[in-house]
Amino acid sequence: MDWNGEIEAARARIAGHVVKTPVLEAQGFGLDHPVEIKLEQVQHTGSFKARGAFNTLLSGDVPEGGVVAASGGNHGAAVAYAARALGHRAHIFVPELAGPAKIALIRSTGAELTVVDGEYANALEMARAHEADTGAMQIHAYDAVPTVAGQGTCMAEWEEQGLKAETVLIAVGGGGLIAGALAWLQGVRKVVAVEPETSCALNAALAAGNPVDVDVSGVAANALGARRIGEICYGLAARHLARSVTVSDDAILAARDALWRERRQLVEPAGATALAALMSGAYQPEPEERVAVLVCGANVAPDPLG
Amino acid sequence: MDWNGEIEAARARIAGHVVKTPVLEAQGFGLDHPVEIKLEQVQHTGSFKARGAFNTLLSGDVPEGGVVAASGGNHGAAVAYAARALGHRAHIFVPELAGPAKIALIRSTGAELTVVDGEYANALEMARAHEADTGAMQIHAYDAVPTVAGQGTCMAEWEEQGLKAETVLIAVGGGGLIAGALAWLQGVRKVVAVEPETSCALNAALAAGNPVDVDVSGVAANALGARRIGEICYGLAARHLARSVTVSDDAILAARDALWRERRQLVEPAGATALAALMSGAYQPEPEERVAVLVCGANVAPDPLG
Repeated sequence: MDWNGEIEAARARIAGHVVKTPVLEAQGFGLDHPVEIKLEQVQHTGSFKARGAFNTLLSGDVPEGGVVAASGGNHGAAVAYAARALGHRAHIFVPELAGPAKIALIRSTGAELTVVDGEYANALEMARAHEADTGAMQIHAYDAVPTVAGQGTCMAEWEEQGLKAETVLIAVGGGGLIAGALAWLQGVRKVVAVEPETSCALNAALAAGNPVDVDVSGVAANALGARRIGEICYGLAARHLARSVTVSDDAILAARDALWRERRQLVEPAGATALAALMSGAYQPEPEERVAVLVCGANVAPDPLG
Repeated sequence: MDWNGEIEAARARIAGHVVKTPVLEAQGFGLDHPVEIKLEQVQHTGSFKARGAFNTLLSGDVPEGGVVAASGGNHGAAVAYAARALGHRAHIFVPELAGPAKIALIRSTGAELTVVDGEYANALEMARAHEADTGAMQIHAYDAVPTVAGQGTCMAEWEEQGLKAETVLIAVGGGGLIAGALAWLQGVRKVVAVEPETSCALNAALAAGNPVDVDVSGVAANALGARRIGEICYGLAARHLARSVTVSDDAILAARDALWRERRQLVEPAGATALAALMSGAYQPEPEERVAVLVCGANVAPDPLG
């Protein structure tokens, strides 16, 4: 697979539809070294997911029946937003776990929305049934080439913005974002995968030697709670990932708090999970090793503006 | 006054002590043109005020008695933070209007804090008495050269980050931030002053032909509620300001909401006041006129993380 070509093509396709998200470098978070940060939660609908959604919708002909997606919330919001922007119908299936803020966000786009009992895997099952019934285009949240290529534009953009770090920490759910980064970087920088201890499909897959089902729970589960890592992510991680670490819910919440207290960035737990690996020491950089953290989502509940 | 020299010197002085705050360009906010934005609320203590505070403390010898400041909240927090970082004592006087979030922020720095009945002007009176009693160094919130030069580093930094806009909109309280921008730009770009209708000391001064006292109230009053514009700001504005506009509290809150809903930036009303001028039409750019908005503060109440 020519991933660099796919990601370059995605960049051209989605330019003008997505936000070039801001970056900064800051000392703080109780660390004795600076951290580069990309504020990808500034993206449309509050997470990186808009990149993959626009890339998928712009990659092929969307049928009359529109698009369908299953999602813990953020992907669904992004697909719904992109579909509206491009004039397509969208039907989104989310588990109850998505929570009221993400459900309200999806509703605000005018998409059809079905809230499903259970977790992400159950929503995916219903989305597949809807696809079979209606011929709608399925937009997978993480395990599809156009999705991964779209998410890969985030890392390509960051490099163009002057990223210096040798090592980039990225939170992992189903693995779309980190797959995009691994696909773009191809080992040129170290990528560290960070997962909650209670939702660590990639960590478990790497230990088992292939994707396996895991239980999912914890404060970041509605964004990172994929039961099984995507095949694309697993394949790229097996070749290119520098390190897989896990963090506790307490570490995630401490990082979430620090992003607000120190940098006035209010993010959801998943959005702070990569930083949590540095703050908790789950990942300890070598002396002189420059590190970067991708902040990836801010669809917090409850909504701070009610 | 060699303002460019003062501001260049300030940049060198405070480098390493302040955050180079991120910038972005985004379509949205119901506008038919993109807007460049600088997220200066990412600065230490959640507002631009840290720039002036560090510049002042690093410009001269700080006496044994430390520093004293009067503040609606943000300046006090910045002075307290800078004093702690540099190993000085600080005593901050704030009006009750500062509110619990800002008062808690100042307390968290370990500074001595006196909450004063009344408004900013009353706090300033007590801070001056404290200065006279103790010999502490007074750090004025806006009407002193080192303060203005420090705030001017924000615009200098933005230009270095590639600012394209011909026109920059900046919220005005006592006028330190906009004075710094006017001093740096010297008319090279248009600067538009934006004030709440209910706290518009600069607008009133320009109408009267000299600084005059105004009543202050409204949703942004604890950050923008200076009773009288600073002399330094007035002098620079009389020469270089392109336009002075005012906005309603409703317009400010609509801009505050849009910054969160569209870009996941949770700011205080003052921080959204410049954007409010675009969204409400108080300032309507010409066709092809590129505009930029400085987002300047995010010490919101109540604290979203409790």
